[in-house]
Amino acid sequence: MTAEERELSDGEYKKLTPELIDVLRNIVGAKYVLYDDFEKVEPYSHDEVVGEKWAHMPDAVVKPRTAEEIAAIMRLANREKIPVTPRGAGSGLSGGAVPVHGGILLSLERMDQILEIDRANMVAVVEPGVITNNINTTLAEEGLFFAGYPMSVESCFIGGNVAENAGGGRAVKYGVTGRYIIGLEVVTPEGDIIHLGGKRVKDVVGYDLIHLMVGSEGTLGIFTKIFIKLLPLPVKKVNLLVLFKDISTAVALVPKIMTYGKIIPTAVEFMDRTAVELACKYLNEHLYSQEVGAMLLIELDGSDEEQLVREYEVIGEMCQSAGAIEVFVADNYTTQERVWAVRRNVPEGIQAAFPVKASEDLVVPIASLPELLPKIAEIAAKFDVVIPCFGHAGDGNIHSTIAKRPEMPAEKWEKIEEQVRNELYQLVLSYGGTISGEHGIGHKRIKYMQKALEPATITLMKRIKQAFDPNLILNPGKLFK
Amino acid sequence: MTAEERELSDGEYKKLTPELIDVLRNIVGAKYVLYDDFEKVEPYSHDEVVGEKWAHMPDAVVKPRTAEEIAAIMRLANREKIPVTPRGAGSGLSGGAVPVHGGILLSLERMDQILEIDRANMVAVVEPGVITNNINTTLAEEGLFFAGYPMSVESCFIGGNVAENAGGGRAVKYGVTGRYIIGLEVVTPEGDIIHLGGKRVKDVVGYDLIHLMVGSEGTLGIFTKIFIKLLPLPVKKVNLLVLFKDISTAVALVPKIMTYGKIIPTAVEFMDRTAVELACKYLNEHLYSQEVGAMLLIELDGSDEEQLVREYEVIGEMCQSAGAIEVFVADNYTTQERVWAVRRNVPEGIQAAFPVKASEDLVVPIASLPELLPKIAEIAAKFDVVIPCFGHAGDGNIHSTIAKRPEMPAEKWEKIEEQVRNELYQLVLSYGGTISGEHGIGHKRIKYMQKALEPATITLMKRIKQAFDPNLILNPGKLFK
Repeated sequence: MTAEERELSDGEYKKLTPELIDVLRNIVGAKYVLYDDFEKVEPYSHDEVVGEKWAHMPDAVVKPRTAEEIAAIMRLANREKIPVTPRGAGSGLSGGAVPVHGGILLSLERMDQILEIDRANMVAVVEPGVITNNINTTLAEEGLFFAGYPMSVESCFIGGNVAENAGGGRAVKYGVTGRYIIGLEVVTPEGDIIHLGGKRVKDVVGYDLIHLMVGSEGTLGIFTKIFIKLLPLPVKKVNLLVLFKDISTAVALVPKIMTYGKIIPTAVEFMDRTAVELACKYLNEHLYSQEVGAMLLIELDGSDEEQLVREYEVIGEMCQSAGAIEVFVADNYTTQERVWAVRRNVPEGIQAAFPVKASEDLVVPIASLPELLPKIAEIAAKFDVVIPCFGHAGDGNIHSTIAKRPEMPAEKWEKIEEQVRNELYQLVLSYGGTISGEHGIGHKRIKYMQKALEPATITLMKRIKQAFDPNLILNPGKLFK
Repeated sequence: MTAEERELSDGEYKKLTPELIDVLRNIVGAKYVLYDDFEKVEPYSHDEVVGEKWAHMPDAVVKPRTAEEIAAIMRLANREKIPVTPRGAGSGLSGGAVPVHGGILLSLERMDQILEIDRANMVAVVEPGVITNNINTTLAEEGLFFAGYPMSVESCFIGGNVAENAGGGRAVKYGVTGRYIIGLEVVTPEGDIIHLGGKRVKDVVGYDLIHLMVGSEGTLGIFTKIFIKLLPLPVKKVNLLVLFKDISTAVALVPKIMTYGKIIPTAVEFMDRTAVELACKYLNEHLYSQEVGAMLLIELDGSDEEQLVREYEVIGEMCQSAGAIEVFVADNYTTQERVWAVRRNVPEGIQAAFPVKASEDLVVPIASLPELLPKIAEIAAKFDVVIPCFGHAGDGNIHSTIAKRPEMPAEKWEKIEEQVRNELYQLVLSYGGTISGEHGIGHKRIKYMQKALEPATITLMKRIKQAFDPNLILNPGKLFK
């Protein structure tokens, strides 16, 4: 077995002993180690991926307060060959925070301070356990904001967002999380505390380890400080809710808004008929009608009201020329919230109607969406499942949910679910897309890595992992077999 | 010696033999191998860093046309332990393209095609040897542009820009090169051809190797295709040239424009009195007067003329409230070109007056500039040198040039030059800055890496290098000792 293919099996990892538990208690304080207490530990055994097969109990939960404590824990873990799985809010959708090899579940929940808001430099310095939404609530008072905006904003931690390179609803204009991370304090898997970047906005000294860390899914290091570049908070927002008879017309418009309209909207969200129906049903909302085949929710922001009006008029006209049924303008907070609530609750609406399902996170080049969506419908018909589609059309990132019809027997579902997934992945890869735009690989998508990446690329990634974590103890069982 | 500290000395690298030259001729064609011809080879022995000590002859220059040819060359180089140094236009400022260990100088000049402009996806696919300026000339006809804008735009190649993560004059609003690279075809040091990203704009599958490659200074791989995300070309541009009595007032205004003005200019360029005087003298231009201590050149762009007018009026008022002597508005192409010509020719102006000099590329957090610049002046006075300062104030990135007064004896300069550099680096590091914002480390700044980065960080970077290039044959002698 070559170095890059070496993997530690469960046989090689050790379990925490009572003696090691005592050492951990000495490091963080006894009340911050949860051990031998199923009720307290169980919530840390899974993230938002539903299903027992995706959960796994850690030996213990450890809740440090400082980078030095974490460094000590990592050094212990390396010495004793104990796996360590870092966890933010546990709101992930790919099993990234699940301790699949037991060991230490390292919760960052106590590192929850906003350390500094440097207005002159437009930088916020935060700990990993700050709820992302709280960052923006605080910054709004300063007329600033962090433009990363995951859809689970109420609960997720910023550390998790950075580890997953979260995307969300504003990426069309503002890009994803990684664009705004200009510095990190990191505890390495071997227990060093390193400082990458800081408040400077340019830096070409050596390799870009910051962006290697962003999206590394907790496998290369643990963030203890995050330096976020801020932007001025746009003063005004406008939402357009546009109803279409069919999906293809709706998505064909998406790239045109940007190329021909010369407008970069903040967001262009898409919902097919099923997604809209189920979200509205869940919320007891009345937005759709029999005619509606698809919806686009377009957001524009800026500091200049007149320019915003001009922009949404241009887009409104384009939509109507393209054959939209209706264009609603939501220019006040209440109506905007109502419209975004529908979009945000699509997953809940689908869950309520189809409890047995698998959420996917497909991404293709934006201009391939009009061809992609009808082909997804063909796959759904072929296997007699329902695949509602919704998401970030402006990025080519569609959350397709493979859902079991209530009448389909469970055994049949178990047979075909993977086949459907494989066909969807094959489809997006054939369009120059890939198998995850923002949710990550975690352990949920490990077996598909070889579909998505060339062997030489996987080899390089494994060598990088080995370079950071020679004993393979940080978040094992994720990304690579 | 540990694995990560291993370095190949000249004794371990082999030289090209006539037999190997024949193999190379078979790979690329005989006319594309320059060997044993000093006049033809010598131009490839240096970049834009002046001075014999920074130049080094390769054994041969090889000019491939395809990725497959490059892969064959890399496999040969690995087998025979021949160093390979990739080269774009040779316009770099840190010696990145200098073949300091001899071997093969791999020139990408023949890979000069714009392969595709995909308007619907707003992506350009180009070969590494395309002159960056030509990309934008072609794209302008489509109403699109690539927002990376290095100041050496007329000559540099896009492949070099990506290798150095070039910054340039528009980074304040548009960020640096790395923001726009969404895909790469790369020949790895071991001779595999891998495909990272593509036309999709989001991708979280595995580690972000694209951004690891960006700015890797030709030490991790050779780019054979580059996928560039494009933006709509702004229709209108306005420049403000603002004259100040003193430096501190000028630079104190820079962060305020963005925080209090809520405006993100395209560019905020700074020139101190000496820089302006020498550029104007060089161009026979008349912009300065006795009163002027510093100048800011502020560019705004957009698609909406009225909004632009509003924005520059806000900025103009802020400048005047801050005590500017004069605010000139340049709103037509001719005047804008005149003003930017002064900025672009500052290096030439300095060179003409001070032929013995060293260009630096300091970066600090933006709000630290007002404190930094007077301290640079103190260092200049202490050592009796001249240090004109100019550059990208909006990014905190100042090109300070350590210049020898004509009357100083050469032996004294040789003694103090490095002391001045060390003090400048110490100064910027003390402000949370670093030693290069955009020019890179190359071989010029290798000895200062240990000042700028922690030992554990350097170790990780060396391990990454090793992971990609086990035989250390790609661009050796750069970044790390």
